[in-house]
Amino acid sequence: MYRAPVTDILHTLLKVTGTKAKGLEQVLQEERFGDLSQDLLSAILDEAARFTENRIVPLRQSGDQEGATLQEAHVTTAKGWKELYQDWAAAGWNSLTGATDYDGQGLPVSLSVAVNEMWNAGSLGFAIGPILTIGAVEALEQHASQAIKDTYLPKLISGEWMGTMNLTEPQAGSDLGALRCRAERRDDGTYRIFGQKIFITYGEHDLTDNIIHLVLARLPDAPEGSRGISLFLVPKFLSKQDGSLGQRNDVFCAGLEHKLGIHASPTCTMIFGDSKGIFGDGTGELNEAGAVGYLIGEENRGLACMFTMMNNARLLVGIQGVGVAEAATQKAIAYAKERMQGRNSGKPSSTQAEAIIVHPDVQRMLLTMKALTQAARSIAYNCAFALDMANMAEPDQQGFWANRASLLTPLAKAFSTDTGVEVASLGVQVHGGMGYIEETGAAQLLRDARITPIYEGTNGIQAIDLVTRKLPLEDGQHIHGFIAELSQEADAAAQAQSPELQQCGTALSNAISDLKQATSYCQECLANKKTDDALAGATAYLRLLSLTAGAAYLVRSALNDSQEARIHLSQFFNAYILPETMALKQSIIGGAHILQAAKTILNA
Amino acid sequence: MYRAPVTDILHTLLKVTGTKAKGLEQVLQEERFGDLSQDLLSAILDEAARFTENRIVPLRQSGDQEGATLQEAHVTTAKGWKELYQDWAAAGWNSLTGATDYDGQGLPVSLSVAVNEMWNAGSLGFAIGPILTIGAVEALEQHASQAIKDTYLPKLISGEWMGTMNLTEPQAGSDLGALRCRAERRDDGTYRIFGQKIFITYGEHDLTDNIIHLVLARLPDAPEGSRGISLFLVPKFLSKQDGSLGQRNDVFCAGLEHKLGIHASPTCTMIFGDSKGIFGDGTGELNEAGAVGYLIGEENRGLACMFTMMNNARLLVGIQGVGVAEAATQKAIAYAKERMQGRNSGKPSSTQAEAIIVHPDVQRMLLTMKALTQAARSIAYNCAFALDMANMAEPDQQGFWANRASLLTPLAKAFSTDTGVEVASLGVQVHGGMGYIEETGAAQLLRDARITPIYEGTNGIQAIDLVTRKLPLEDGQHIHGFIAELSQEADAAAQAQSPELQQCGTALSNAISDLKQATSYCQECLANKKTDDALAGATAYLRLLSLTAGAAYLVRSALNDSQEARIHLSQFFNAYILPETMALKQSIIGGAHILQAAKTILNA
Repeated sequence: MYRAPVTDILHTLLKVTGTKAKGLEQVLQEERFGDLSQDLLSAILDEAARFTENRIVPLRQSGDQEGATLQEAHVTTAKGWKELYQDWAAAGWNSLTGATDYDGQGLPVSLSVAVNEMWNAGSLGFAIGPILTIGAVEALEQHASQAIKDTYLPKLISGEWMGTMNLTEPQAGSDLGALRCRAERRDDGTYRIFGQKIFITYGEHDLTDNIIHLVLARLPDAPEGSRGISLFLVPKFLSKQDGSLGQRNDVFCAGLEHKLGIHASPTCTMIFGDSKGIFGDGTGELNEAGAVGYLIGEENRGLACMFTMMNNARLLVGIQGVGVAEAATQKAIAYAKERMQGRNSGKPSSTQAEAIIVHPDVQRMLLTMKALTQAARSIAYNCAFALDMANMAEPDQQGFWANRASLLTPLAKAFSTDTGVEVASLGVQVHGGMGYIEETGAAQLLRDARITPIYEGTNGIQAIDLVTRKLPLEDGQHIHGFIAELSQEADAAAQAQSPELQQCGTALSNAISDLKQATSYCQECLANKKTDDALAGATAYLRLLSLTAGAAYLVRSALNDSQEARIHLSQFFNAYILPETMALKQSIIGGAHILQAAKTILNA
Repeated sequence: MYRAPVTDILHTLLKVTGTKAKGLEQVLQEERFGDLSQDLLSAILDEAARFTENRIVPLRQSGDQEGATLQEAHVTTAKGWKELYQDWAAAGWNSLTGATDYDGQGLPVSLSVAVNEMWNAGSLGFAIGPILTIGAVEALEQHASQAIKDTYLPKLISGEWMGTMNLTEPQAGSDLGALRCRAERRDDGTYRIFGQKIFITYGEHDLTDNIIHLVLARLPDAPEGSRGISLFLVPKFLSKQDGSLGQRNDVFCAGLEHKLGIHASPTCTMIFGDSKGIFGDGTGELNEAGAVGYLIGEENRGLACMFTMMNNARLLVGIQGVGVAEAATQKAIAYAKERMQGRNSGKPSSTQAEAIIVHPDVQRMLLTMKALTQAARSIAYNCAFALDMANMAEPDQQGFWANRASLLTPLAKAFSTDTGVEVASLGVQVHGGMGYIEETGAAQLLRDARITPIYEGTNGIQAIDLVTRKLPLEDGQHIHGFIAELSQEADAAAQAQSPELQQCGTALSNAISDLKQATSYCQECLANKKTDDALAGATAYLRLLSLTAGAAYLVRSALNDSQEARIHLSQFFNAYILPETMALKQSIIGGAHILQAAKTILNA
């Protein structure tokens, strides 16, 4: 059974985020986040831990088994799901980061990622819903008119209503410029939306009375491609003047996907402006065809509106990876301690069976799970801290932190979700045959985790983003500043008393050397307009940077805490995981021309 | 849609197996396998390809969706499954390797793995059934009495009946010594079996009239542990004197597992000797409690009987990895060519959408899939060839080949199945959001593949087997002879005309150097009785050896075939995959003492 690792989470937040000069611990002391003290932070984490352990975890498997069901455009979630969500929102968990003007608590993203790690460890299928509401809230906070904000933000922030993101269409996934959903202007300043969206997470459900869809669509006179996309708010029920629910809008769920995992989360096909009474439930009352929509931001600037919320959304999907990895690790450790089978090498076969955790290979798997999880957590929390500082730091520092968040976002998304899948798969392996049986729950973690490297921008797209948009930040200097910070950790370790920490410093230095060479290579490719050569190694580069950053954070964790366990974990990471940087560097620098030639095999 | 890669399979069989002096091509020319000529081999492969493509592949998804169902101890397989199996057996596919004395075709394992790759690419859930029958046939051929052979082998070899392996019990999985199933002697020389077995693949089904269970159980006076286990044949229906079906035996299916994948394959809990009429279907007619069993081999020598068939069974599970990897690769390539989305870097966003295969990162994923699959295939086919030669070579060579098969078996099992999972997961990723939708079929390949690193000895156990039992072969010299053979490929490539091949030679030499150091380290650990130190790196060592062998086979493939594509694939493997050997070597040599210290984190 999952126990939220509050100590590790708090340690990572306070001791491992930020730069040597400024991390969350210092910032809290400066009272930069208002009332939020270390004690309050700790108390909130304890409360979130309790809610997760007592309420979410017990429904993880039943939510998976029951899933969501569709009947005549109505979606029913699994048993207990509605009460779970409503109690969760009533406890204030939805409003943590919401603007205080709309009854949000205005707490930092750093806190939000920490509790989101827990919700996701509890159930990915549960936690993904509120992640989308947060996305909608951010888009509205930054781009909506005052009237829209006043009507929708309070209820979206409290969680009384949930939000969705309606982006994908069958021909428009990663390439949103290809979307075809249509919007028409009406004289009263509203719009009517027509078309189909697919893969809409929590597009329809019974958790809340109303659902607020943010929908990308194209005006008749819009330019082609990504510059002709506008963002609209399309509520399931229109709001009356007094704020109560009005007419049913012409947006309906026409189908649910049968997915590999996150079964509790309904993935909907949504139809806008096509009801014509087909659902036969008396909802075809609108005078005029089309779903009523309200423009958010300016016409044709819809993609820009989406991009403002993307850093946070990508980070929160990355956190899904951390959460599922932590859950899988705890589950595997518990199983390895209770499963009696065989005995350690060297003992006679007549010896009584021992727990499988006595085997070095099982220990290796479990420690790999722990070390990868902590590395991913550290990267994601650092990204969150940078997002906070981009808003809260001294004004002249905000640009630096915004760039730092920008740099770390693809790592936080891709490395954490790759880690989620890798760790969940190791978890299945530790369980042996039982891992393949659904009853055990280890397989569900793998099934659930497998979506995270795909949605919110595939991890391949994250790697492209890192190489082509983040390496050039500050004329290519931001990344070198970041690497210099990682080097400081290596230097500090090299100068530590403990020989173990000194070794950690050496291993980290070697990885940093690999990273520097690979970084220079990628930047040269870009400078020489050989973008494809850089892209051939983009995924390897993202992993190289993530592993090195993760190793540096583990070193920092060991330097900033006297616990021997943190030194051991750092050493383990350096011995078993970090050496991959040598291979990654080599494939980045030596691979591109070979990929160029080899792609002929594919007739590509 | 899957097309069996007959050209690649034939090329691998003929040009990549064996030593430089002797591979399958030479052996066929020597007519060592009787009538089996290159032409006949090719014709058989074509026929198997047709059967797979036309009959098995079309049922892969429906078999998964319907699964097998249990009602009152009767198991019904998915629609079309029975006809598929019966037509497959009627076409003679089950009898390929069976002894000619019992109407088998006596064909080599090399051919069997090639067609098994196809069956498994068609459907893992289908192909695993016959793999178990082959296991039963082997055990009986080598250990059963003449009477048993005469009664059971003809029908098991023809496929009229299927066989099962009843090994696992709740407390006895990897550690069979812990099993508790009970056998009692009867005066007529038969035995009665009592107890429960779990995870029994195709333990009950409707494909054949009779099912022949091989069951491990313990006699009342047996020694404890693995030296007190006997092997019994327990038919579902007893045979009458005239060979027709007689009494229903007291062995029943009490439950089916709900698994992550291979849903078409019923995984049964089997109860022996406990019917007491509980199934209420008039089968409680036996005069005496217990399931009637016949001893195979000697009392208390059951595990030895199982071990004789284990090489082949492990190899065939490895082939499951190759088959699913090939299927996933083809599916992903086809999708990447048809999915229009975005455009290559450098092109303006107004350019029409291009197929996603234009992206370097997608090409990298697809080529990784192809390269890993071919490496795994080469290793598995080499293992098969060694098994054949252990029987068919000149008598003074058979020992060498038996050791070679022994060395390669853990690689063929573990590396191929790890590859199956890795490649199937990449396949999901290439499909993007569609990969997560079950309808697409990519996710099924991952779900199906995920059992293969677990069953027939977990891959961790394969690594332990490699390090502790295979490295010591021939006083530790066999592995060095094998590495010397790999070096010959590196030397040949270094001396080739083509600069590309020369580069391949250099890369391979580097990997071989890593492999030599790691091998010496492991052997020193064993010599110094520091077994746990060797075991801490066992999984890494298995991968290091596999990657290096795979690279050498890809080099050989390129040297022995003028096709440029084979050079490109070898180059790609060397650039993107092989560099991992550096990291693996380092973790093997540097990891053990760190693991020793770090395991305290786990309280292990």
